[in-house]
Amino acid sequence: MQKRYGRSGFDVRLPPKAEEITLRPSRVVVPSALQPIVRADHLTRLEHSYGKAWFDACRMFLRTVPNPPDAVAFPDNEQDIVRILAWCDQIGAKAIPYGGGSSVVKGIEPAAEFEKVVTISMRHMDKVLEVDPVSHAARIEGGVYGPHIEDQLRGTPFTMRHYRQAYRRSTLGGWIATRSGGHYATLTTHIDDFVESTRVVTPVGILETRRLPGSGAGPSPDRMFIGSEGILGIITEAWVRLRKKPTFRTATSVRFKNFYSGADAVRGITQAGLYPANCRLLEAREALPDIPWENEEAVLMLTFESADHPLDAWMARALEICRDCGGVPDAAALDDENSHRTGAAGAWRNKFIRAPHYSEHAVARGLLSSTFETSMTWERFPDFHAKIMKITHDTIKKVTGREGTVTCRFTHVYPDGPCLYFTFGGILDKRMMLDQFMEVLTTCTAATVENVGTTTHHHAVGRFMTSSGLNFLPARCGGPSADSIRRG
Amino acid sequence: MQKRYGRSGFDVRLPPKAEEITLRPSRVVVPSALQPIVRADHLTRLEHSYGKAWFDACRMFLRTVPNPPDAVAFPDNEQDIVRILAWCDQIGAKAIPYGGGSSVVKGIEPAAEFEKVVTISMRHMDKVLEVDPVSHAARIEGGVYGPHIEDQLRGTPFTMRHYRQAYRRSTLGGWIATRSGGHYATLTTHIDDFVESTRVVTPVGILETRRLPGSGAGPSPDRMFIGSEGILGIITEAWVRLRKKPTFRTATSVRFKNFYSGADAVRGITQAGLYPANCRLLEAREALPDIPWENEEAVLMLTFESADHPLDAWMARALEICRDCGGVPDAAALDDENSHRTGAAGAWRNKFIRAPHYSEHAVARGLLSSTFETSMTWERFPDFHAKIMKITHDTIKKVTGREGTVTCRFTHVYPDGPCLYFTFGGILDKRMMLDQFMEVLTTCTAATVENVGTTTHHHAVGRFMTSSGLNFLPARCGGPSADSIRRG
Repeated sequence: MQKRYGRSGFDVRLPPKAEEITLRPSRVVVPSALQPIVRADHLTRLEHSYGKAWFDACRMFLRTVPNPPDAVAFPDNEQDIVRILAWCDQIGAKAIPYGGGSSVVKGIEPAAEFEKVVTISMRHMDKVLEVDPVSHAARIEGGVYGPHIEDQLRGTPFTMRHYRQAYRRSTLGGWIATRSGGHYATLTTHIDDFVESTRVVTPVGILETRRLPGSGAGPSPDRMFIGSEGILGIITEAWVRLRKKPTFRTATSVRFKNFYSGADAVRGITQAGLYPANCRLLEAREALPDIPWENEEAVLMLTFESADHPLDAWMARALEICRDCGGVPDAAALDDENSHRTGAAGAWRNKFIRAPHYSEHAVARGLLSSTFETSMTWERFPDFHAKIMKITHDTIKKVTGREGTVTCRFTHVYPDGPCLYFTFGGILDKRMMLDQFMEVLTTCTAATVENVGTTTHHHAVGRFMTSSGLNFLPARCGGPSADSIRRG
Repeated sequence: MQKRYGRSGFDVRLPPKAEEITLRPSRVVVPSALQPIVRADHLTRLEHSYGKAWFDACRMFLRTVPNPPDAVAFPDNEQDIVRILAWCDQIGAKAIPYGGGSSVVKGIEPAAEFEKVVTISMRHMDKVLEVDPVSHAARIEGGVYGPHIEDQLRGTPFTMRHYRQAYRRSTLGGWIATRSGGHYATLTTHIDDFVESTRVVTPVGILETRRLPGSGAGPSPDRMFIGSEGILGIITEAWVRLRKKPTFRTATSVRFKNFYSGADAVRGITQAGLYPANCRLLEAREALPDIPWENEEAVLMLTFESADHPLDAWMARALEICRDCGGVPDAAALDDENSHRTGAAGAWRNKFIRAPHYSEHAVARGLLSSTFETSMTWERFPDFHAKIMKITHDTIKKVTGREGTVTCRFTHVYPDGPCLYFTFGGILDKRMMLDQFMEVLTTCTAATVENVGTTTHHHAVGRFMTSSGLNFLPARCGGPSADSIRRG
């Protein structure tokens, strides 16, 4: 960062200690019957006040937590949830379901206008209850963290492999409630495609859907809960699709002249029906060490994997498509079994896994460092990309008075379009860093929606969209989601 | 049929002439402004009274049409639809959207309790409006029949290829409203996967969703309309995903000892991630000519196709899986470019295309001949299959007093389960054929739902489920769809 911005160093603000932050007294009295599973102590309430976005870390550094939950419940089972919801109903408290707390869109944050708030943490409901080795599926409780799913599947031939970036700090129920995207580039990657059935405690009873591989019966009830962001009930269990652990893998990276020629290759690969497990297109300067910031090259991380068959034919054809677009594959990587952990792929992999942990360090140094994501169809991509890159650049400069940086990558790709993931950075004025940050992020998000991308490809909507001045959304987009345009 | 049931022939009832059927007088007066687009003549009303199920043909043969629509509107554009809906609202008439009229579940049939009914036929809104050659998608009006879509795509490299059985007599809007399944065995086959965006005239305005390859924003509005069966509005347009016309194809058939060993192979193929275009498992006696009814063999129709690459590696691995399950591939077919039109595949193909047209001939002869379909996960399949086969057999015998037939096929397959499509037959007593038929079909459908299959995999729900004694559905299954189980 010092090199990128030509600075010799940064002042580092100290992270807060819990006792430095004052919380308003809890506005609820926990009845004795619920005391074993409900806590209202300072640290517990503080921990459940914010998600994990840059603006969350920033507000913690500012020691500003005006709207903590009044209590946090930790149910051990569905019956506990029923009792907690009954209590909330009785005292007129809002109930906020809480998984891993990794939301970056104020998804678990109590709103200022809520009179009483009880957050319901699902972390004790964390079991893989049943594995179906014939249909390749498992029944899993909603409160389990990603790695703990894989731990419990050890000893079976199966894996869920929903390796989203917040994998270690997010839960199955959270993935479903937020329509999470996994790390796969193609096919079964959105949580939508994993869910076979859901079980939900709603305010009017417990609803469980049938385990069905496919159905033509009306709008799917699972699809009401997927993306419901906690407002329809608490997802206590789901049957999810598993796959056998991959035993065949072929991976390499491919260098392209620029992002657009790389995009042409990616489009060709997805439209060819080849379905790589990884097909991430990155700007070389973002992905690789020691690339000068002026370099416009792009690098494609390309992996095929299977538990069933060698993938030479698949990779050979994908590389033909890359070469037709001027791509230069890393031939040595192809022969290296661990190539996804070394070279360009390995460098990017480490960065991907560690990136969420950089946020607090950025905040401590007054560095702008965040992301936003969207998707649109291929034919609009070049124009959209150019526009949003420019708007982001210009906004950072206007708001901070200094040049910033913005890069773009494809995290997921479809035959009809890519998911664009923008990463932006710059140097803020520490005295007004939160305001500056919010102005940059809301301007860029507004531009994304204005240019008819989706509001969010996999970060969810949360309270961010309505709490940060993006009030054009309800006016423009009636109906059940931000992705529609109401006319007439 | 004579051979199957050991009969020397059948009495043939004559099909009705339109003038033999009396309709109750229309209960609406068409205002003069709408007269150019609304018809209330005898033949038009008669034609829009029933769908195309066996029980529809039967009631026509019985000359019984107690609930015709009072008028049929033929809008030329969205503004016409707005005017027609306003008129319906004004006179208190129910509006029934009508595509091709191929429903087999009373999807377009006016209910007896409706006081006034205006059916809205979309057949004049039949254009492919726009083709996006970059993202491989097209904007298409809702009233267009299947073949007419492909006609209009001629001259482009693209095809939609949603070749469901009713392809020639059903429309894009109908496919979306009923969550139609296509002819592909795997991947993009349900209409859900084709739809990029929808445009719908609702009673409160026109809603259009964004064209998005993927989104994480709340429950998808498209998914509210997909499967809505006409109750939320009229689908006037959709952007749908296309693909390039396949130029590589490899196809063969594989014989198995019985249906269960074939099922093992199919499960292996889908779980291996090979994605064949066709992977239909059939009982040999149903699919092939000159097989004795006692023969228990099964035959798998297996096809890979691509517009991009040869498929030898794909087919080779799929055939290995088949051989591991005792399957014997038709080696000659593999070398035959037209093998999907000849041999076992060709014989089945002709039967598949012609089957819907046999229904009227069956009715005329007093033959029971119909189908029902469901899906469930693999681990329940053998037990479910055995149970439903037995129940269907026993029910036909109990109801008709004679031995009937029942066969099963897989029409679509998923990594976690198959779609089972049951075809049943028998000889009815002509004096009470409709009652006998309904008793068989509702008993089998009830058994399917009771054994936790889906109510319907691709035929839709329609009014059939609630009008035929299957009243346990609303009681057992609260919520938005028949696929859920409400508890607590």
